[in-house]
Amino acid sequence: MSINEVPYKIYLTEEEMPKAWYNLRSAMKTKPAPLLNPGTGQPMKAEELAPVFCEELIKQELDNDTEYFPIPDEILSFYKMYRPSPLVRAYFLEQALGTPAKIYYKFEGNNTSGSHKLNSAVAQAYYAKKQGLKGVTTETGAGQWGTALSMACSFFGLDCKVYMVKVSYEQKPFRREVMRTYGADVTPSPSMNTAIGRKILEMHPGTTGSLGCAISEAVEVATSTPGYRYVLGSVLNQVLLHQSIIGLETEAALKKYNITPDIIIGCAGGGSNLGGLIAPFMRDKLQGKSDVRIIAVEPASCPSLTRGVYAYDFCDTGMVCPLAKMYTLGSNYIPAPNHAGGLRYHGMSSILSELYDEGYMEAVSAVQTDVFKAAEQFARVEGILPAPESSHAIKVAIDEALKCKETGEAKTIVFGLTGTGYFDLVAYQNFHDGVMTDYIPTDEEIAASVSTLPAVK
Amino acid sequence: MSINEVPYKIYLTEEEMPKAWYNLRSAMKTKPAPLLNPGTGQPMKAEELAPVFCEELIKQELDNDTEYFPIPDEILSFYKMYRPSPLVRAYFLEQALGTPAKIYYKFEGNNTSGSHKLNSAVAQAYYAKKQGLKGVTTETGAGQWGTALSMACSFFGLDCKVYMVKVSYEQKPFRREVMRTYGADVTPSPSMNTAIGRKILEMHPGTTGSLGCAISEAVEVATSTPGYRYVLGSVLNQVLLHQSIIGLETEAALKKYNITPDIIIGCAGGGSNLGGLIAPFMRDKLQGKSDVRIIAVEPASCPSLTRGVYAYDFCDTGMVCPLAKMYTLGSNYIPAPNHAGGLRYHGMSSILSELYDEGYMEAVSAVQTDVFKAAEQFARVEGILPAPESSHAIKVAIDEALKCKETGEAKTIVFGLTGTGYFDLVAYQNFHDGVMTDYIPTDEEIAASVSTLPAVK
Repeated sequence: MSINEVPYKIYLTEEEMPKAWYNLRSAMKTKPAPLLNPGTGQPMKAEELAPVFCEELIKQELDNDTEYFPIPDEILSFYKMYRPSPLVRAYFLEQALGTPAKIYYKFEGNNTSGSHKLNSAVAQAYYAKKQGLKGVTTETGAGQWGTALSMACSFFGLDCKVYMVKVSYEQKPFRREVMRTYGADVTPSPSMNTAIGRKILEMHPGTTGSLGCAISEAVEVATSTPGYRYVLGSVLNQVLLHQSIIGLETEAALKKYNITPDIIIGCAGGGSNLGGLIAPFMRDKLQGKSDVRIIAVEPASCPSLTRGVYAYDFCDTGMVCPLAKMYTLGSNYIPAPNHAGGLRYHGMSSILSELYDEGYMEAVSAVQTDVFKAAEQFARVEGILPAPESSHAIKVAIDEALKCKETGEAKTIVFGLTGTGYFDLVAYQNFHDGVMTDYIPTDEEIAASVSTLPAVK
Repeated sequence: MSINEVPYKIYLTEEEMPKAWYNLRSAMKTKPAPLLNPGTGQPMKAEELAPVFCEELIKQELDNDTEYFPIPDEILSFYKMYRPSPLVRAYFLEQALGTPAKIYYKFEGNNTSGSHKLNSAVAQAYYAKKQGLKGVTTETGAGQWGTALSMACSFFGLDCKVYMVKVSYEQKPFRREVMRTYGADVTPSPSMNTAIGRKILEMHPGTTGSLGCAISEAVEVATSTPGYRYVLGSVLNQVLLHQSIIGLETEAALKKYNITPDIIIGCAGGGSNLGGLIAPFMRDKLQGKSDVRIIAVEPASCPSLTRGVYAYDFCDTGMVCPLAKMYTLGSNYIPAPNHAGGLRYHGMSSILSELYDEGYMEAVSAVQTDVFKAAEQFARVEGILPAPESSHAIKVAIDEALKCKETGEAKTIVFGLTGTGYFDLVAYQNFHDGVMTDYIPTDEEIAASVSTLPAVK
């Protein structure tokens, strides 16, 4: 196995790197449902979004038709610091599994933020700076997005205020320290800094927080502080647009070796990684040129696609954001405290929700002890300690490779390895100590949570 | 700055990767002094080393003449998992400094062990497995070597017992957790497991441990447990041989773009990174083909090259190892507890010591608050959170680049960025909180420590 036709890692050259983001919406016959004004029930207009988001990003958010958005030179230069990311052939994993399947993973963890989140963070910070803003606010769950945004803001000289879900803030003090190295201001959420934070703390004094709540706080601060806007690391159309760099690089790397994927697998929380990874492959599928299987993997403790409803819902707990149509568990849904890592958002990107609803995509869920088993198996043979989020994709990639072993099919499986687990070692420790537990919400719990959905005509 | 002739990252292809390690000793007129038997004062023979080290590694250790050692296929395959590492052009750092200098760094942190240590770990584990051993023992300071060895042993199915300097064990619980993911057995040193550990604890009950002490424990366990040998992550000739992969890749990457370095800078603890990075460049210098400046950077709190003596000394505190001729602070020297990160060994590789003594290499020291300032500056513009060890090289690279700014010279500076700082965030936190202090030993302290050197005819 020392010499292989396909190298262990396929790197594009800088010249081969994509120069534009691909807008998957342009290929969709049924466009994702628009954001609605919660007061009027009408689609949000650019001017209504302007107090919250940066102007250029609003254009990207609302544009369902433009196929390609050129990547500005400043962002391309920043990308070159840590991109192209490698497409890795998992020879050692294949060998360990004894599978005829060919497994590839696109590794997005080779940057200090530790994940793919940097791809959109740099874009959003760039447009905020270009607009002459003083700073941005955001929320972060596991901390990857907050770290990524801190790095991007530091680079462009922007203030960065991060509201970090309290349970992560406490479990991951070193995440906070990395953000501090990049000059960010990090507050555990819910906090007493905001009206919505104070209200939530009054109603739920012992709450460990949620992404939905942290979003509400960050939006409140952005809209009440002159020169600030709010930025978000997932769910939104603009974020999936920026993350298309993952899929475009993957497509280019596969083409260099004439490889056609049979299955593409990605973890799914809000959908940023999966939406980016699949963008060009889903385009081909929508255009009838490909029958690739696309599988979203979500945590059993936060199963929006597999057990949620497809409906308009609030994006945040405080109900200050526009309404989005998505597969959702209800904006009050909070994964059980034993849930490690990210993928804890109650809803799913409108783009992915629509594609899933139309049957272009499959979804499965996995319990976290199975996910950590897969993570450890992968770490030992592939030499990368994966993030718990990414390990959801590993788990299902291994499952599919083992099915190939049974059937003898040499399928080509591509999955997204979104990040590293260096800041998730409390969870790994719990796993090693045998004290990690699983949680699967009951039908009643989910029914109660989705009963809070807003009425939309 | 969007299009540059030299890309941000120069990657070799797999075909361009070195297929053999380069033995710098073969180019040295005066060979490094041999290891001595502490009892007889005579050079150690292979059979005397055999109870401690693996056979193939002993051959590499004692061979001063062979120029190239072919890298076995199994190791080459493993290398392809995380190598070639990128040679990065620090465009953003140059811009931030406003220097005409061209700065490159060889980044070895893109693997889960977080450093270059994996390059030798995989070689040593491979030869141990090939010899039919059951397991290996080792020491680790900051934890990078222990993590690397755990990964390598897990890959080849070897047991791995790690003695971790107690201060690091306590400051870096997550390091231990990564090693555990790879199945290693980690013990804080000094421990009650060994005779030497018990003796040291009796003499110094509150000791925070040292590398020299952890080495003694690991050697004792290796030599008293059937089927085990001891492996070491730095200092030894064999380790510098394996690490030559860093320098050979750097040389090949520079040649692709016709770049000739003026200055090469590396941090120096035991010398593994520096010795590997400079190998082909020092060869050219020894052969009169180059006048490149080579600079070793060591911590002011552990200044073996700049303030030690060049003499035979014990390699370990327990005096169970052979004697080595090296620049040393005395085998009882322990850096002050406020010293963060690695680079805490009392001596320096015999190869580097000899080259330094002959004037082929410069050495400077840096205090740690200056090192962390450089680390933070680098992190903010280059997007990588560096290890404290690596940041010693960053500090001096910045100093040299600023000298170029004054003189207007466009020198080419290459430095080794040996690893990432994800597990050093307690130190970063101390730095941010303003509670990090510097320590420079007094002449009296060093004189007292070197007074313990053994008498060698």
